[in-house]
Amino acid sequence: MDEDIRRMFYPDSVAVVGASAGSRNMGRNIVQNLITWGYAGAVYPVNPRGEDVLGLRGYESLGDIPGKVDLAVAFVPATAVPAVMDDCAAKGIRLMAIPSGGFSELGPGGDELTRLIRSKADAYGIRFVGPNGLTLINAENGLCLPFLTFKKREAGGISIITQSGGVGVSLIMFLDNSSSRFNKFVSVGNKVDMDELDFLEYLGRDEGTRVICMFLESVVRGRDLFEAAKRLDKPLLVYKANTTEVGARTAASHTAALANDDRVLDGALRQAGAIRVGEIRKLIDLARAFEMPPMRGNRVAVVSQAGGYTVLCADGACRAGFEFPPLSGEVVSGLREYVRSDVIRLGNPLDLGDIHSTEAILNALDRLLGQDDIDGVAMVLLRRSDAKYDGAYAGMSREPYPEIGRLMRRHDKPVALCLLSQCQYLRDVQGRMDYPVFERPEEAVEALSVMRAYYARRPAPA
Amino acid sequence: MDEDIRRMFYPDSVAVVGASAGSRNMGRNIVQNLITWGYAGAVYPVNPRGEDVLGLRGYESLGDIPGKVDLAVAFVPATAVPAVMDDCAAKGIRLMAIPSGGFSELGPGGDELTRLIRSKADAYGIRFVGPNGLTLINAENGLCLPFLTFKKREAGGISIITQSGGVGVSLIMFLDNSSSRFNKFVSVGNKVDMDELDFLEYLGRDEGTRVICMFLESVVRGRDLFEAAKRLDKPLLVYKANTTEVGARTAASHTAALANDDRVLDGALRQAGAIRVGEIRKLIDLARAFEMPPMRGNRVAVVSQAGGYTVLCADGACRAGFEFPPLSGEVVSGLREYVRSDVIRLGNPLDLGDIHSTEAILNALDRLLGQDDIDGVAMVLLRRSDAKYDGAYAGMSREPYPEIGRLMRRHDKPVALCLLSQCQYLRDVQGRMDYPVFERPEEAVEALSVMRAYYARRPAPA
Repeated sequence: MDEDIRRMFYPDSVAVVGASAGSRNMGRNIVQNLITWGYAGAVYPVNPRGEDVLGLRGYESLGDIPGKVDLAVAFVPATAVPAVMDDCAAKGIRLMAIPSGGFSELGPGGDELTRLIRSKADAYGIRFVGPNGLTLINAENGLCLPFLTFKKREAGGISIITQSGGVGVSLIMFLDNSSSRFNKFVSVGNKVDMDELDFLEYLGRDEGTRVICMFLESVVRGRDLFEAAKRLDKPLLVYKANTTEVGARTAASHTAALANDDRVLDGALRQAGAIRVGEIRKLIDLARAFEMPPMRGNRVAVVSQAGGYTVLCADGACRAGFEFPPLSGEVVSGLREYVRSDVIRLGNPLDLGDIHSTEAILNALDRLLGQDDIDGVAMVLLRRSDAKYDGAYAGMSREPYPEIGRLMRRHDKPVALCLLSQCQYLRDVQGRMDYPVFERPEEAVEALSVMRAYYARRPAPA
Repeated sequence: MDEDIRRMFYPDSVAVVGASAGSRNMGRNIVQNLITWGYAGAVYPVNPRGEDVLGLRGYESLGDIPGKVDLAVAFVPATAVPAVMDDCAAKGIRLMAIPSGGFSELGPGGDELTRLIRSKADAYGIRFVGPNGLTLINAENGLCLPFLTFKKREAGGISIITQSGGVGVSLIMFLDNSSSRFNKFVSVGNKVDMDELDFLEYLGRDEGTRVICMFLESVVRGRDLFEAAKRLDKPLLVYKANTTEVGARTAASHTAALANDDRVLDGALRQAGAIRVGEIRKLIDLARAFEMPPMRGNRVAVVSQAGGYTVLCADGACRAGFEFPPLSGEVVSGLREYVRSDVIRLGNPLDLGDIHSTEAILNALDRLLGQDDIDGVAMVLLRRSDAKYDGAYAGMSREPYPEIGRLMRRHDKPVALCLLSQCQYLRDVQGRMDYPVFERPEEAVEALSVMRAYYARRPAPA
């Protein structure tokens, strides 16, 4: 199975059945994506009139294609899928991506069709992803198969398994708001053949994948998923929808998903060391935590320019069970030099409210990270993009962010930074830094917390 | 007391003690703000050498000012505040704003100073806001007193009471990311004299204030706050920090705040009809819910272009106790016209995944809102700013947002819209619409939920 999935992500040639020249043809978008993303293998459009598509030679049928075809995309109505499978078998194609909707998510009629493609696949030895999904993107080789056009993204380290195509698209957009990118993406849809477990096992061994994010509406092979998650030696984040009665009714007509006992699933995921998130954005935001150096223990420092945020983060970190070692004498005396009017008590949590100097903030952070009994730092900075950092605030004009990145690498400890600012400025900083810049202080604390849980099970090298 | 606070927000003249000409003087920023914001009253800088500040005639002492002074800002070190109070009394000034830190938040020495200003205020009949805060901004008349420079904002309907200046600044930045603005802002700091309760009572009667947001680290007059919240006929949202042991230690050295029994406070707030939020961004994001028409009941429709989001929102709405009336025959038949390939089951929650037409989305929304047994709609739209909406997707090129606003006004029902997109596009839409555009689907559902709770107690006119 692993080799089948490897070949699905890295085929030498792709046929797109249902891609034609008309501007309103959606299959054409698949060909467009393969071109835009620079996929280097052969691409064969297949349509009834054998039309060329976007400059690529078209064929009337799969059988007409001269060379070998590794993977066929069946962008045809559900009822036409079985015939495409027959053609695939005849051509010797053993891998298919089936985006078409109209199967079990529509009720009994669709169930019959589902059984038919299932039995044909068995008879022909065909493996497929879908139906009813966006199927695959591999940012490493430009294999981009969704029927929506996507601009090319460089390959990153986060891989995504999603049961909903639309949710998958939004996860990619969340990544676009950062400097992180995805590596592999699979929208499994009704997962009649290959499912999240198959992809999880593959991505677990995939070199390009450093973190795995899953959006699920159902779990069919719960026990196996649990075992696979337990064996995994990279972080796995899971959002599981379809946890209520109305959710279940909705999921059934979306991806034909059955409901699971959520408490059982939750316990199993936790026990397997997976990170379950309760808000969809966190699937990406918390995945990015693992771009920082590891959080090796339970001892934090909380730092902010705003006293209120030290209180708020202290509450969060305290509830999460973190310990707050006192500041060393060296840290305190180093800070004393920068305090303007001595109206701030220096401790941990550390309120930098009266210290209007980027240099002092970085100096404090450097010393905090150097303290042996501190494992990581949660930091909340404010930056008003409409403020002039001059006069008394001239010491703040230099941006601290690049140096924060360097400090965490040098000390090999994480600094979960939350930057509060106007959207444009925040986005600009997020795009320039090679570590996550959180938008909500609560998430900076949560990032340290999920890392702590992960590395407690799979200790990072000292 | 009410009249004192009214005059603090609407003084005819302001003296700024501690504002001088030097570029590193922070008091000068206060004068700068009053100029930038177009405050129309008289502004008198006061400093030891009587220097003019930013073109305004300066004075050596309060006593030298020729005219009447309504409000004095004491931007001086804590130890110098009592003397400024003496001068105020001599000049007949009865209202003060005291930003200076260095009082009880620093321990026993500060406690003594606190008692001193408290007793002087009593003796002189002086009322003051502070110490240790950013004091006041009134966007209606340009009274902008923080010692950080702020660009002018137009007056909106949200008023803010905060115990932390830094948190207050971030709340203003959160509003900057939207089309909403604040009306009045007060950073009460150590609240030695005027406290959140005084301001809450005033803002409750203030015409320009439609919604009140509070960030608190402590509640001193809990019973009175409860009574005031109960009497209020506008929405009150509260974030209360300092709920853990470490939080309490931190808050004590920040604003000299004492801890409260959080369960008691939580119950009291709930009983009084206040909305307690557990994440700081929600203080603003959920306040904006009240810019929509009222949610009069418990019956929702959930709509999305992505099936996964209908499941996710259905889960959220179901957990929040909402009911999902079935779609009327009229709604369903209206939608049938637009369905491309009939691969979607039409129901509530409503998956528009196969309907690639802005017109169809708006048509569906119009009919849903027209259904008598639907009280409000939660809607999740996706918009990829990198996509070309042409070919098969040309029907999506028109933006639905302005019409969504018009539809909710026309039907007088809320549409809690979550838009998932890249940050720049999202920000652009948020800035152009006169209703809240949520960034997280969970918050769209939560917005309906807090409105439902509010209007259950204070029914909106039918």
